[in-house]
Amino acid sequence: MRDIAIIGIGMIKFGELWEKSLRDIAVEAALNCMKDAGTDRIDSITIGCMSGGLFNGQEHLTSLLPDYLGRHTTPAVRVESACASGGMAVRSAFMEVASGMSDYVLALGVEKMTDVSENIETYTLATTADGDYEAFHGINLPGLYALMAKAHMEKYGTTRNQLAEVAVKNHRNGALNPHSQFPMEITVDTVLRSALVADPLRLFDCSPITDGAAAVLITTVEEAKKIGKQPLVIISGIGVASDTIALCQRKDILKFEAVELAGQRALKMAGKTINDINFAEVHDSYTIAEIMVIEALGIVKEGQGGVATANGITSLNGKFPINPSGGLKSKGHPIGATGVAQICEAVLQLRGQAGKRQIKNAKTALTQNMGGSGGSCVIHILEAK
Amino acid sequence: MRDIAIIGIGMIKFGELWEKSLRDIAVEAALNCMKDAGTDRIDSITIGCMSGGLFNGQEHLTSLLPDYLGRHTTPAVRVESACASGGMAVRSAFMEVASGMSDYVLALGVEKMTDVSENIETYTLATTADGDYEAFHGINLPGLYALMAKAHMEKYGTTRNQLAEVAVKNHRNGALNPHSQFPMEITVDTVLRSALVADPLRLFDCSPITDGAAAVLITTVEEAKKIGKQPLVIISGIGVASDTIALCQRKDILKFEAVELAGQRALKMAGKTINDINFAEVHDSYTIAEIMVIEALGIVKEGQGGVATANGITSLNGKFPINPSGGLKSKGHPIGATGVAQICEAVLQLRGQAGKRQIKNAKTALTQNMGGSGGSCVIHILEAK
Repeated sequence: MRDIAIIGIGMIKFGELWEKSLRDIAVEAALNCMKDAGTDRIDSITIGCMSGGLFNGQEHLTSLLPDYLGRHTTPAVRVESACASGGMAVRSAFMEVASGMSDYVLALGVEKMTDVSENIETYTLATTADGDYEAFHGINLPGLYALMAKAHMEKYGTTRNQLAEVAVKNHRNGALNPHSQFPMEITVDTVLRSALVADPLRLFDCSPITDGAAAVLITTVEEAKKIGKQPLVIISGIGVASDTIALCQRKDILKFEAVELAGQRALKMAGKTINDINFAEVHDSYTIAEIMVIEALGIVKEGQGGVATANGITSLNGKFPINPSGGLKSKGHPIGATGVAQICEAVLQLRGQAGKRQIKNAKTALTQNMGGSGGSCVIHILEAK
Repeated sequence: MRDIAIIGIGMIKFGELWEKSLRDIAVEAALNCMKDAGTDRIDSITIGCMSGGLFNGQEHLTSLLPDYLGRHTTPAVRVESACASGGMAVRSAFMEVASGMSDYVLALGVEKMTDVSENIETYTLATTADGDYEAFHGINLPGLYALMAKAHMEKYGTTRNQLAEVAVKNHRNGALNPHSQFPMEITVDTVLRSALVADPLRLFDCSPITDGAAAVLITTVEEAKKIGKQPLVIISGIGVASDTIALCQRKDILKFEAVELAGQRALKMAGKTINDINFAEVHDSYTIAEIMVIEALGIVKEGQGGVATANGITSLNGKFPINPSGGLKSKGHPIGATGVAQICEAVLQLRGQAGKRQIKNAKTALTQNMGGSGGSCVIHILEAK
């Protein structure tokens, strides 16, 4: 297997981008990435997008996006794994270069979610749950995460305030990120006074509906050394796992088995343990999700995610910073772009270019991106060399 | 790059399978494939499906399908490139094994198209065209192919009867295929008397709406030799290319540039020319498509696809058999499954297991799978060793 490096990243400011189309924002992120990389060589493109079909009436982005990037004839593949589509696009790009099939592959994540009505948005997000045994009966994603939150509070004594602390911390970080959709600080009170979505989850426990795109350019370490940018950022490990799609099929709804397994697989491939990781970008689609993810990854003990967050362990200057970018909560969650944007943030931190939210001596990062209520997960380990 | 073999294939009978669900047919094809391979080892799954979202209200097949296959925790990725999704799933599986990331990867194509009304079916297929500049204005896929057919007739003198001969030939082959949706022979008259869909294309010029699934199991040649099945079927070349998504953007609407380029790339990788190929499975979504595809691949000269078909060049016992399976026209076109099913047919032929439709001395095959009106294309070269 050839060794792989990331030589370019491209973000756009996330938000409700009514004046731009899906093709516009994808091209904008791709151009930013090529500018950052200092090369316009792209042999092939992997596209992370969850549902161009339901959100935009547009499948076949493999033809549309190379075309609008001025690169028709370039091979492209779209990959989807619900909210983990972006991370999967980076993994597909990694394997394409690692196999020797292509040398320069652009992983491009995009989702344009605000062009449809709210009920279509909610319906589309619920297509990541089990269509026959969950969504058909009316439960949606906030409802599924609310069940987990209730059970976590009951079993481990996690409090309503501890859930809120996840959002407070992520907004504090996101306020330092120029690409954030909601770059404002909030308090526990902001969360507690916000509208109830699915008890106990309130509006500020949930990641927003977002338009956005993000891109990374991947090549071999050998090629990257020729370009000569310092530090060299490599992908040293990738892990993927699935779990049952329906929550009711799981042995324990408080364990993200896919996250645990994907984490073990990625760390094993990189030859690391979780203690070697300096910080992580994780999938805080809901506040309870971040709590359960840091438990599944072994960053904190089972049931301790809420307490650890309230104690500042996961803050920017804490022992194990989580979501320095602001996470899905503050930066926004344009589904197919999210996993790519996590990797953009990790690269920025590893390069020491993260400005006011820079983590000191960041050498090794983990990014965790998951689909639905945890039915799929993809994890990357990145290192500055 | 590790050398790659196909050690198992699994088909189901295509049709309007109202008594089965998407998850049922996908699992059925996967189990047939494992049985054929004689192993149940699957390290990872690639899923070809165009639009579980629009057809079934179900995204996130990466969680659903491993789960229903009794393999939750297994990594999975869904890939999409409109009607070329199946071929792209095989390519992704190829690269995953070639890179060394996994050793046994199941490429599983599936589409369940008949659970929605006809207007949703037509809408969904039109999402493979340019949403802003084509579909929004009312043109759909039959309309786009009708434009190509009209222009081909005008420029090259292709006749209405020659178009029909493609359907007649493919139904003749499909009548010999136990997995065909429409395994009956037809005549030119059947085509000419069928309902007009988009002038000059009639019902029998168009591939049907189909439920179906197909699977292939991919591993290294080294592993395949241990299993020891004869002959060994290898994938020696893969080519992918994109074209402009909108027909109006092309220099020449009678040239499938993506097909031409993907063919050149695949043949180059395999170290072959088109004259080394014994037969091909091609994307006859419409009769005019097969005519233009065999021209783009260099099997016949520019403009000669219709004449060549009428002259029997592409018949089962002709000089260059095309679509021995019956093609999309007779076998059916369950979108995400189609590209995988083409490869199943190629493997059957290369193994000498194609029964009454067996091509003599078939050693080298080409499969051509494309998206939309030719906006993307993936081509595989397979060889019996």
